[in-house]
Amino acid sequence: MNPFADKPNEALSSLGETLLIERIRRWLGDSSPAAPFGIGDDCAVLPASGKPQLITVDPVIYGRHFDDAVSARLAGAKLFKRNLSDIAAMGGRPRAAVVALAIDPHVRISWLRGFYQGLAEVSRRYATPLVGGDVAHLEGGIVATLTLVGEAAGDRVLTRAGAGLGDWICVTGRLGGSLSSRHHCIFSPRLAEGQWLASCAELRSMMDLSDGLAKDLHALTPHHAVAALWEKHIPKRKGATLRAALCEGEDYELVFSVSSRADLDALRRAFLKRFPRTGFTCIGRFVAPGERGAGIIDLAAYHGFEHLRQ
Amino acid sequence: MNPFADKPNEALSSLGETLLIERIRRWLGDSSPAAPFGIGDDCAVLPASGKPQLITVDPVIYGRHFDDAVSARLAGAKLFKRNLSDIAAMGGRPRAAVVALAIDPHVRISWLRGFYQGLAEVSRRYATPLVGGDVAHLEGGIVATLTLVGEAAGDRVLTRAGAGLGDWICVTGRLGGSLSSRHHCIFSPRLAEGQWLASCAELRSMMDLSDGLAKDLHALTPHHAVAALWEKHIPKRKGATLRAALCEGEDYELVFSVSSRADLDALRRAFLKRFPRTGFTCIGRFVAPGERGAGIIDLAAYHGFEHLRQ
Repeated sequence: MNPFADKPNEALSSLGETLLIERIRRWLGDSSPAAPFGIGDDCAVLPASGKPQLITVDPVIYGRHFDDAVSARLAGAKLFKRNLSDIAAMGGRPRAAVVALAIDPHVRISWLRGFYQGLAEVSRRYATPLVGGDVAHLEGGIVATLTLVGEAAGDRVLTRAGAGLGDWICVTGRLGGSLSSRHHCIFSPRLAEGQWLASCAELRSMMDLSDGLAKDLHALTPHHAVAALWEKHIPKRKGATLRAALCEGEDYELVFSVSSRADLDALRRAFLKRFPRTGFTCIGRFVAPGERGAGIIDLAAYHGFEHLRQ
Repeated sequence: MNPFADKPNEALSSLGETLLIERIRRWLGDSSPAAPFGIGDDCAVLPASGKPQLITVDPVIYGRHFDDAVSARLAGAKLFKRNLSDIAAMGGRPRAAVVALAIDPHVRISWLRGFYQGLAEVSRRYATPLVGGDVAHLEGGIVATLTLVGEAAGDRVLTRAGAGLGDWICVTGRLGGSLSSRHHCIFSPRLAEGQWLASCAELRSMMDLSDGLAKDLHALTPHHAVAALWEKHIPKRKGATLRAALCEGEDYELVFSVSSRADLDALRRAFLKRFPRTGFTCIGRFVAPGERGAGIIDLAAYHGFEHLRQ
């Protein structure tokens, strides 16, 4: 759906700020608590928590992260879910979100209703209230930025650091073809999976896949090691090529390292018993540079998504 | 300074994402701790805190909140400080910030360096690390969104609700002429003042002034009451008219209500002893509708800044 209105009375500018904020509260409904625990004060207040807090921020931008082929509802849902995926990547539990919207006043009221309804659906599904936000004027565009606060779900958060030489490299789900399959807006963030994995002592590090495995995996790779990935083991989405699985990005799956001393098969069986529909694939190991073999992918030939290039 | 580059080699697109993120880390320096307590993981981790947490978000948008007359450094500083002002409004203490930048790749590298240096200066001055962020491509514009997490500084946070009939209405500092005096980018957020005020039992409610007193004061006004402001008592910035002081916005001062049973003069003296340069003015009271008097401002004749109108 094209976000821009044909007639002036369909556009945000016909509402003005006060009415618009009233509408936003209505669209959000019970996904947004009353002030000071939600919208309506200078800050939202979250109850004290004895756990380490997590914070992450990601936007969706019209023309970059969604376009006219994506409904307003799915664009809103995508914004929320891509941030939830970052909380999942640490094994965390989401607590609350705030949304800052920079938007052209010519955007349709009905588009924005769909967008906030999409946010509200995800908010309810993952029990993460929308506690605040801001709406400001941006000529000719839409930038919606969501910040998510979460906390450790168990005893630890899992970071990108921690893998060692010989550790196994594993992923959830399947990779590639995110755009053509619409996975990029209909995916489910791996929150429950991330929490479960972070509670396993054999797990050493974890992250989510957003810019493509070939690029993202660098952040998980220990110093003085390289990732040896088995070409035949990469779990590809239906119709996706190896290149798509390694480079296209927006997979929103988890990639993680498992200690070389772990019983990998037992871990995999336990995971699949708990999450029978998610998928758990060991795709390779971290090895010393130079240690190559047959069927190993030459990662130098693949690049993930590079932002801010013309 | 115009943010856009004349020559391709001066533009962000000439760096690409990896180098750009490296530069951002360098520009931020010690204002950004290492992962997982700062930039470099899926989420930033904040240590556990036993206090209620505060969260607020506000952007700066090129062409709305700053233009070519404002240096990149001041634009960055303004972004940080307008969020600090929201933490001040609750009597809170800032803990950490994340910044999401949506930016045209044709923007000058030197402009962005100034912007992050401005952020870093405020970060250091108010001991509030920049712990994470995101950079994404926006055609033709700059939208920078900062989310701030804080916590209660003392036993309570002060909200907008709580004023009663007869309560005094007070403000810090002077109002009006923010744009012409450059106050909108050189102001100091009233953090210490807000914390001090929140610790006084006589204080009933508080907020910061961003859209003009005439508009913002509605949020502080109790049901079945109106604000009776004394025209002669409104503290005006040098050169500002009464209308400017009530309507222009971007004052970033605190407005608060004081119990009608308080010793207002003693409170004022104590405040001025602690903050001799800030100013503390009682500007009126909340009274029953219809209760008018000579020298009272007719607030219906004044409007604050209305967002999202054409």
